[in-house]
Amino acid sequence: MSAVVQNYAMGQWVPGSGTESQILDAVTGEPIFTAYSGGLDFEAMMHWARRTGNPALRKMTFQQRGLMLKKLAFHLLEHKEEFYTLSYRTGATRADSWVDIEGGIGNLFAYASLRRKFPDKPFDVEDEPIGLSKGGTFMGHHILVPKEGVAIHINAYNFPVWGMLEKIAVNLLAGMPAIVKPAPITAFLTEAVVRRIIESNILPEGALQLVTGTGEGILDHVTFQDVVTFTGSAATGRKLKAHPRLIQEAVPFTMEADSLNSSVLGEDAVPGTPEFDLFIKEIRKEITSKAGQKCTAIRRALVPEKLLEDVQIALGRELAKTAIGNPQAEGVRMGSLVGREQLQKLRGQLTELARQTPIIYGDMDRVELIGADAEKGAFISPIVMLNQDPFRCTDTHEVEAFGPVATLMPYKTLEEAIEITKMGKGSLVSSIATFDAQIAQEFAMGAATHHGRILVLNRECAKESTGHGSPMPMLIHGGPGRAGGGEEMGGKRGVKHFMQRVAIQGSPSMVTAITGVYQKGARQIEHDKHPFQKYFEELEIGETYTTHRHTVTEADIANFANVSGDHFYAHVDATSLEGTLFEGRVAHGYYILSKAAGMFVHPKKGPVLLNYGLEECRFTKPVYPGMTIGVQLSCKEKVSQEKRSEDDVAKGIVKWLVDVTDETGETVAIATILTMVKMKNQG
Amino acid sequence: MSAVVQNYAMGQWVPGSGTESQILDAVTGEPIFTAYSGGLDFEAMMHWARRTGNPALRKMTFQQRGLMLKKLAFHLLEHKEEFYTLSYRTGATRADSWVDIEGGIGNLFAYASLRRKFPDKPFDVEDEPIGLSKGGTFMGHHILVPKEGVAIHINAYNFPVWGMLEKIAVNLLAGMPAIVKPAPITAFLTEAVVRRIIESNILPEGALQLVTGTGEGILDHVTFQDVVTFTGSAATGRKLKAHPRLIQEAVPFTMEADSLNSSVLGEDAVPGTPEFDLFIKEIRKEITSKAGQKCTAIRRALVPEKLLEDVQIALGRELAKTAIGNPQAEGVRMGSLVGREQLQKLRGQLTELARQTPIIYGDMDRVELIGADAEKGAFISPIVMLNQDPFRCTDTHEVEAFGPVATLMPYKTLEEAIEITKMGKGSLVSSIATFDAQIAQEFAMGAATHHGRILVLNRECAKESTGHGSPMPMLIHGGPGRAGGGEEMGGKRGVKHFMQRVAIQGSPSMVTAITGVYQKGARQIEHDKHPFQKYFEELEIGETYTTHRHTVTEADIANFANVSGDHFYAHVDATSLEGTLFEGRVAHGYYILSKAAGMFVHPKKGPVLLNYGLEECRFTKPVYPGMTIGVQLSCKEKVSQEKRSEDDVAKGIVKWLVDVTDETGETVAIATILTMVKMKNQG
Repeated sequence: MSAVVQNYAMGQWVPGSGTESQILDAVTGEPIFTAYSGGLDFEAMMHWARRTGNPALRKMTFQQRGLMLKKLAFHLLEHKEEFYTLSYRTGATRADSWVDIEGGIGNLFAYASLRRKFPDKPFDVEDEPIGLSKGGTFMGHHILVPKEGVAIHINAYNFPVWGMLEKIAVNLLAGMPAIVKPAPITAFLTEAVVRRIIESNILPEGALQLVTGTGEGILDHVTFQDVVTFTGSAATGRKLKAHPRLIQEAVPFTMEADSLNSSVLGEDAVPGTPEFDLFIKEIRKEITSKAGQKCTAIRRALVPEKLLEDVQIALGRELAKTAIGNPQAEGVRMGSLVGREQLQKLRGQLTELARQTPIIYGDMDRVELIGADAEKGAFISPIVMLNQDPFRCTDTHEVEAFGPVATLMPYKTLEEAIEITKMGKGSLVSSIATFDAQIAQEFAMGAATHHGRILVLNRECAKESTGHGSPMPMLIHGGPGRAGGGEEMGGKRGVKHFMQRVAIQGSPSMVTAITGVYQKGARQIEHDKHPFQKYFEELEIGETYTTHRHTVTEADIANFANVSGDHFYAHVDATSLEGTLFEGRVAHGYYILSKAAGMFVHPKKGPVLLNYGLEECRFTKPVYPGMTIGVQLSCKEKVSQEKRSEDDVAKGIVKWLVDVTDETGETVAIATILTMVKMKNQG
Repeated sequence: MSAVVQNYAMGQWVPGSGTESQILDAVTGEPIFTAYSGGLDFEAMMHWARRTGNPALRKMTFQQRGLMLKKLAFHLLEHKEEFYTLSYRTGATRADSWVDIEGGIGNLFAYASLRRKFPDKPFDVEDEPIGLSKGGTFMGHHILVPKEGVAIHINAYNFPVWGMLEKIAVNLLAGMPAIVKPAPITAFLTEAVVRRIIESNILPEGALQLVTGTGEGILDHVTFQDVVTFTGSAATGRKLKAHPRLIQEAVPFTMEADSLNSSVLGEDAVPGTPEFDLFIKEIRKEITSKAGQKCTAIRRALVPEKLLEDVQIALGRELAKTAIGNPQAEGVRMGSLVGREQLQKLRGQLTELARQTPIIYGDMDRVELIGADAEKGAFISPIVMLNQDPFRCTDTHEVEAFGPVATLMPYKTLEEAIEITKMGKGSLVSSIATFDAQIAQEFAMGAATHHGRILVLNRECAKESTGHGSPMPMLIHGGPGRAGGGEEMGGKRGVKHFMQRVAIQGSPSMVTAITGVYQKGARQIEHDKHPFQKYFEELEIGETYTTHRHTVTEADIANFANVSGDHFYAHVDATSLEGTLFEGRVAHGYYILSKAAGMFVHPKKGPVLLNYGLEECRFTKPVYPGMTIGVQLSCKEKVSQEKRSEDDVAKGIVKWLVDVTDETGETVAIATILTMVKMKNQG
């Protein structure tokens, strides 16, 4: 008897109950697992996540959560061969599985690194503070806190590993636990990954649960503190989106549905150019990788009318080279679909499409295989269709054949190509192969409203391009309209989907107390000891050093001009100022900045290791000889850094607000500077 | 016969048809307008907006759209007295109307100014570019383009002017047209404002249409390029959100529903403290202003148990001072509800609430009025209820009485207060009166997940505070759960709700061509003429000046230390470097920056007017004596500025990428600097 695909619920592995079904090997058709449709108490699972995983995660800082993801990524990498072995049974080649498995783990690494873009706190402080009053006593600032519920991820069958990891990387960094519900047919691979995650004890209890059955009723208990994401067919997605509970509770819902993505061959990319070859290769890759079972695959290939025949020939030649069969057999480049049910559905879609657009490559009922039996596995040949009249034959833009299928279409003008692209009514991605910047610009601007991602493919980036079909962790993944209207990943943006944004209003001191970021005008703390003589842990937010003052002289300006070599007329030529904004020779902005440092820096060796940058510097008032400047240096924000190695110095980044004022108290320059400061505790 | 409230559809004022109804003066009960329920072809209106207003707005730059809003704001200000006069008929006092009318116009001004935070282009380029390859030949960047549809705003009856202007300010800046559907009962005031907008010809044709009837069927033709916003009751909002067309097309939908907002008196804020008085005043203001018909009004007032009696007495005293009646009568501080139907509904809600929580101030059936007749107008007394057991008597947290009503509740600990606040299941706003930073911090962190805005009220900000009830243009307005889960306004975030976000991928040159922002690694253009000698219009994105090079000497470091006064040990003390990150005396970061300027600045008087700041500066590699540095200065981005007056110099901001490299070609410092550059054309 085959093993049972289990669920992980409330800290236990359970087989579930309900309808029993057999999961078959996609290649051989042999039963490999038994699965059960249900038997889980979703309400209890959600309650458990809210009571255990949520509080544990939400009290961790972004830095801690990021390091947790990094550790998890390394742990899963160690076990990757086990996942590869199982993945063959879904019909995937090793290259296909690389995207799923190592692509998924790569996502964990990417979100681990993203911790550096967040504060060293459990919550985020967003963008610039907002002044709300003339006198500066009332202001606002946005923060984001982890929601108090659980993220429910309902995933598709094509990426059982990446589909989970790309999503949980984000909710875990945000500080929320997850319940993952992969599609039953490939859930055995997800289960294997979750087993490794759970046994590692890297995540706090309750941070992750797994539902391998059908998930019937999983949304019946969600509340507005939960977040639901869905990846899969548009039909199912829409049904879930209208779920009364989601509507009633205003539950955030993100949907990423399959879409009819397009790729365009630029008019300049004639045969013989690198772009022509790149286009052919990209289409071939998108048809064959994962046997075309990708929500981002190119379904519609748009070609200049006059190049249609060239493309047909070149693509046919490329596809003919693609060996199909058992993904474990040598030389095989394309495996099978995940199951015969999917194959049957695909054949139905192809039959429907073929009424308007003939198949010009491949045969949906016959395929030559290596090491596999077409009667047993879920195999199909790559299929290319031709739509000679894309404005009239519109099935191409409506029916998504989820397999190794693409349709070629001619276009006359770039405007027409944009129009055709948009007939997909919202897609995840479109690409264009061109070396002409103007074509690229016009296409991107014209097609932008209907896409979540647009890629320009050409000789400049070909070697390093990640390709049309790959969503990237730091870029938005999602598209408008048919593609679901959602956004996933995308760096910080994605993390914020799992957090509540709140505008904080009050006096600068209160906003400082709440955000942990010093706000201009807040209460300052002055101590005897110079802040540059203090260790990271000793520094308080709001701690301020007020410097001595300096009367700027003509000699200062002349000397600075000599040292820097900056002899800009306004600094050195007293006869040149007519018609300028200056009343006389003005000090260099960089002199003010440098002199400010000369005043606030403590020269003696201490915990400050280096000055590594500055941000948002503005010169707000000209400084003339005779004016007297002074500085207030306030500790604005602290971010601790983890050690890179055992020998590394324990340290953190300290941001300082540098406020340079003149003798009237007006600010002449303001900046945020960044220093690296040693910790007292080197343990 | 009274005038007909008209619709503005497809460039025409039309009375509509269908069911006829009379709009009554809220104060006198006299019929003042006739209104019709329908008769509009919404499909044609949307088509018209997409065909006329959308293309006209989307091709304008943010700067142009912003100036358009500014002009509109000034135009409406000229006519404000006319709006005030009409507004009395909704039962509003002059102070109430100020919020609606001048608050609304203020929103136009605020979004006009926000143009400066956007590029000088029709689309936005968002955040930092994303590197996607080791070699730097493949990268990504997000842009946002205006959607191709129309914004449909379904608004509430309480703010007929602000409700429209707060929303159209945002979609117009984004580059989208709008169809506004105010609630029928106060639509006559919205109509008056739209008449002034249309006659001004400031907006392009098709940018604004008005529906004053019931709007039945208005969502039947929306597509995924449209955006729908709703403000009003949660019940109606949920119905609209589940509209099959919205689900089918994945139409972005933002909902802002009435919520059971709370305010907390801090434990420290005992009688005699300024915070106690501020709390009482704020509660009184939120009960009486707009007769409590505000989605942000304080419905639940939480008071430390031991202060309950003090608050009861002080609040009663304050409320007793509030004169109620005809808003045009002298001394009147509180007017009526918008209509008797609303009054009846409110009485029903009060009856329901009173079963659990007795009325301790006011009488829902009797009120003393100045210059008005309680039998004719929609008047009601301020009502205060008392809920002695907020954990058991939960109607307080569920039933929203939309009028001059608040409920007092005792709490024992701050934790309990947070818990009670959260029983509202998601609110627009909560506030706390406290002078204790720790109480403020704990409250904000505890309550954050359930709110869109949290205000700390105390003596530090009291004079300038805009108060609990005022959404601010640059802060998020909206809340989770019962409050609808939406976000409005909030500065740039709000604008982005009306735009499509697209990740652009390609080589740096292609991304530069599409975004119009120079990307490191993109093709550079070198000319003979120094870029500082060129006018704003003459500069090209990517135009680069490569400087001569300079070998850094010990003398440079010593001289710089003397000029700046920065004698930090790592620069000047060769014996101090043990255990540091430096191999020898290192040049000051600000020296590198200053010397870079000395190399790239053209000293001769020219179009560059001044250096006004720098951003994102990083010192990436230490520079020691003997190393040789040089600079590449590339024109990164240009933003034209409008003249402030006739005499003003025509100019723009030019951002430059400053890349300082050493003799090996490695970057030692990188920064973006900002200069102001004169235009050639001063016309």
